[in-house]
Amino acid sequence: MEARKILLTEDEMPRRWYNILADIKMNPPLGPDGKPVKAEDLAPVFPMNLIEQEVSDQRWIDIPEPVLEVLATWRPAPLVRALSLEKALQTPAKIYFKNESVSPPGSHKPNTAVPQAYYNKVFGIERMTTETGAGQWGSALSYACSQFGLECKVFMVRVSFDQKPYRKSMMAAWGGKCVPSPSTETRAGREALEKDPHTPGSLGIAISEAIEAAVADGSGKTRYSLGSVLNHVMLHQTIIGLEARKQFEKIGLYPDVVVGCAGGGSNFAGLAFPFVLDKMNGKQVEIYPVEPAACPTLTKAPFVYDHGDTAGYTPLLPMHSLGHAFVPPPFHAGGLRYHGMAPTVSQLVTEGLITPRSVTQLDAYQAGVLTARTEGFIPAPETTHALAVVVEEARKAKEEGKQKVIVFNWSGHGLLDLGAYERYFCGELENYELSDTEIAQGESIFRNYPKPKLLKSGS
Amino acid sequence: MEARKILLTEDEMPRRWYNILADIKMNPPLGPDGKPVKAEDLAPVFPMNLIEQEVSDQRWIDIPEPVLEVLATWRPAPLVRALSLEKALQTPAKIYFKNESVSPPGSHKPNTAVPQAYYNKVFGIERMTTETGAGQWGSALSYACSQFGLECKVFMVRVSFDQKPYRKSMMAAWGGKCVPSPSTETRAGREALEKDPHTPGSLGIAISEAIEAAVADGSGKTRYSLGSVLNHVMLHQTIIGLEARKQFEKIGLYPDVVVGCAGGGSNFAGLAFPFVLDKMNGKQVEIYPVEPAACPTLTKAPFVYDHGDTAGYTPLLPMHSLGHAFVPPPFHAGGLRYHGMAPTVSQLVTEGLITPRSVTQLDAYQAGVLTARTEGFIPAPETTHALAVVVEEARKAKEEGKQKVIVFNWSGHGLLDLGAYERYFCGELENYELSDTEIAQGESIFRNYPKPKLLKSGS
Repeated sequence: MEARKILLTEDEMPRRWYNILADIKMNPPLGPDGKPVKAEDLAPVFPMNLIEQEVSDQRWIDIPEPVLEVLATWRPAPLVRALSLEKALQTPAKIYFKNESVSPPGSHKPNTAVPQAYYNKVFGIERMTTETGAGQWGSALSYACSQFGLECKVFMVRVSFDQKPYRKSMMAAWGGKCVPSPSTETRAGREALEKDPHTPGSLGIAISEAIEAAVADGSGKTRYSLGSVLNHVMLHQTIIGLEARKQFEKIGLYPDVVVGCAGGGSNFAGLAFPFVLDKMNGKQVEIYPVEPAACPTLTKAPFVYDHGDTAGYTPLLPMHSLGHAFVPPPFHAGGLRYHGMAPTVSQLVTEGLITPRSVTQLDAYQAGVLTARTEGFIPAPETTHALAVVVEEARKAKEEGKQKVIVFNWSGHGLLDLGAYERYFCGELENYELSDTEIAQGESIFRNYPKPKLLKSGS
Repeated sequence: MEARKILLTEDEMPRRWYNILADIKMNPPLGPDGKPVKAEDLAPVFPMNLIEQEVSDQRWIDIPEPVLEVLATWRPAPLVRALSLEKALQTPAKIYFKNESVSPPGSHKPNTAVPQAYYNKVFGIERMTTETGAGQWGSALSYACSQFGLECKVFMVRVSFDQKPYRKSMMAAWGGKCVPSPSTETRAGREALEKDPHTPGSLGIAISEAIEAAVADGSGKTRYSLGSVLNHVMLHQTIIGLEARKQFEKIGLYPDVVVGCAGGGSNFAGLAFPFVLDKMNGKQVEIYPVEPAACPTLTKAPFVYDHGDTAGYTPLLPMHSLGHAFVPPPFHAGGLRYHGMAPTVSQLVTEGLITPRSVTQLDAYQAGVLTARTEGFIPAPETTHALAVVVEEARKAKEEGKQKVIVFNWSGHGLLDLGAYERYFCGELENYELSDTEIAQGESIFRNYPKPKLLKSGS
C-alpha cells in the first residue's frame, strides 16, 4: 500500500519563520507626504512588536513557544499524495498538497492569526478589530483571540453577513463579535449608511470601520489586524513551505512545480517563499501564483504604488494593482476578490522568480469537483484555482511523459461554501472576462501617484 | 512543549476489525413468524458478503486492502490530548479524544460507509440506497460510493432537507443524489404524501422509501445500506478503538474512563468495543455510552424485541427501545434521535459491562462551547453529549484528586450544525424531560412481542 500522507511530529515542526525581506530588495511604503512611512506612524494601528517584524530584514525569526503550542493543535499539517487524482488524470506526475484545511477555522489563516493575537497580547492589547469578506479571516482571528483571552470584533461585509450566517455563528462559537458592515458603530459606517441605507457594503468600508474602531478607542488597548498582504503576514505563513520542504526531504523528493492560489498572496507565499529561497540559491523549480481571470492583478495589472484599501487610508504600497476602487465581478471565491497583491509577491513577479497564471471560474470549479470525487475532501473555492493549474500541469506532464513532482497548497475546505458548489451544479455560475477598457478604468486611479523602482535582488 | 497529538503511520493502521459477537451471547433477530431470520431473508436488501459479516462469530476479520487504501485518506485518526480543556477545568485528569471529524464527510460514518460500498461493489451491485436524517450518513455513503464508482441515492427527511441545504450540496459534490422524503418515487412516499401533502417526513418513512427503492429495482443491482445499529456496522467502526489502544500503548497509558455518545450506537461501539474486550479479560475500565435525556433509550427504556424502523419492516431486534413509533422531542443532535439502540450495545448494558448515562441538551451545548473555546475545534452536537460527561468526570477527578485518564470519541465536527449553535447563543434551545407516562406510551407498542432472554456472556 503506497503511503498517502507524509507526517511530521510536533517535535519536527519548524521553530523559525523565513523572512524573505532578507533576500529581496523592496520599495518602501509611502505616507501621505510621499515619503517612506515611519514605524511610529503605524503605532496607533498595530502593536510595535508586529511593526518591528513588518520592517525586519532578519532572515530567520524565532516562533515564540506559546505560538507553537497553539499551532500544534493542528500542525504540522499533512503533506498528502493525491494518488486518486493522479489515477483519474492518468498522469505520470506525482501530485502532493499541503492540507491547510485541517485547522479549527478550516484554512491557512490561523497561521498568522495566532501569532498576531499573541504579539498583541504580550504588548498589553485587550481587544482586536478586523474586517472580513467571505468570513475565513474573521473566523481565524476569532479563534486566535479565544486562545489568548482577547476580545475580537469583526466587521463583515453586509452581503456576506446575510448570505453566510454560519460564518457569524462560527465566530460566536469562539466568542468573537461579528457585525454587518456598514454598521452604526463608526463614523465611516454611519456615513456609508446615510449615503445608501441598503448598501451591500464593501471590503473597503469594512476596513475603514475596523481601523476606526481600533484607533478611536481611547483606552489604547485596541489594535487592528490584517489577514494578508503585509510582510509579517507572509512571514507567519512560511511555516507551510518550511514543513513541506522537510516532508519532501523525508521521501527524498523535491518539487518541480509549486502552485498556490493568490488573492492577497498569503497562502501562496506561505507555501512558496521557502522554495523561492532555494531557487535564488540555484534550485530548478517553477513557481506559480494562480489568480482568477476575473481579478487578474498579477497577470494583467501593472506594478505601481497604490493604496491597500478602497478609502485610501493605508500607506501607498508597491504592488501589482487593478486600482484601489476596482470592484471585481461577482465570482465565488471571496478570498481572491482583491484589487492588489502582497508587495513581496509583486516584487518576485517583477524579478521573474515566480510566474503568475490565471484561470476561469468554471475551470476552477470543474477541477474542484474532480478533486472532491477522487481525493474526497471538498476544496474551498479559492483552492480550486490552484487545482485548475495542477490539473493542467499534470496533463502536460502526461503529454511530455515526464514524472514531475507537483505540490500545491490546499488553502482551505469548502464546507461553508457549499452554496457556491450548489450554484455550480445548477449551471448558475459563469465566467467573467475583463475588457482592457475595464482594466484601464480601474487603473486610472493611481495615474498620478509616485512610481516604484524596478529593483533587482542580489545585484 | 507537551505533545498534543499521538499519531500512527499508515503502516500502523489496524489490518483487522474486532467482532464482539465472538465474545458475547446474543438473542437472534426474529422474522414476522417469530422465528430467527435466515440469511437468505435479507438477500434482497443487503449483499450476501455483508449478511455473512452480520452473523459471523469470527473474532478478527481482515480489512480488505482496497478499503484500507481509502481509509488511509484520513486514517489513522489522531489521538489528541485536550491540554487546553484540562487547563480550563483545572483537573488533574488527562483528557484524550479520537478525532473522527477529520474524514472527508467530517464524521466517523465513512468508517463503515467505505467497506459497505466496497462489499457491494465486489458483489456486483451498481447502486446503493439509504436514508438520512441530519445528513451525516447520507454524506458518508455518497462519499464512499464515489470512491468505488457506485451510484448513490439518499432519501433525506424533508424537514432536514429544507433546513440544511448544504448537506444536499455536499452529497452532490460526491455525485450522490439526494431527494426529500417523502418523495413521489416510491409507493411508501406517495402514500405518505397522500395522507399529508405538507408532512415534514420522518426517518421511518425515509427508511421505507430507501428499502423499497432497493428491493423494487428489477435489475437486482441495487441494495440498501444502514449506517448504524447492525452488527457489521459496529464491526467496521472498531478500527477507532483499535487505533486508540495502539496510541495509548505508545505513550504507556491505559484509559480509566471511555466515553462516547450513543444514538444508534456505532461511534460509541467503535471506540469502546476493543476496551470492552480488555474488560472481559480483566482490565479495570469504566465505559459510558451517553445519550440525550430527551431520548433515553438505554437509561430509561426496557430491553425488549422491537422493530428498527417506524413502519415495522425490519426484523424484531433485541434491544433497549422507547418503541418504534416514538418521536423524540425536537432537540438538536439529529444523530441521537433514535428510538432504539444497537443490539450489541444493548446486550452489554444488560450484562453490566458498560454503564449508560444521559445528559440534557443545555449541558451538552455548554460543554461543546467550552471545548470550542479551549481546544479550538467545534464539535458536532452529538459529540457535545460525550463532552458533557467528560467535563463531569474531569471535575470528579479534581474533587477526588485523581489523575485519571479519560478518552472520548470526537464523532464529528459541527461545521454544518452552526445553525443549532446560533440558536443556543440566542437562548432559543431548551431542555426536554420525558414524563414516565410519555415513556410508557411509546413502549406500549411492543407489549405483545416476544421477549428476549437475559443472556450472560462467558457463562
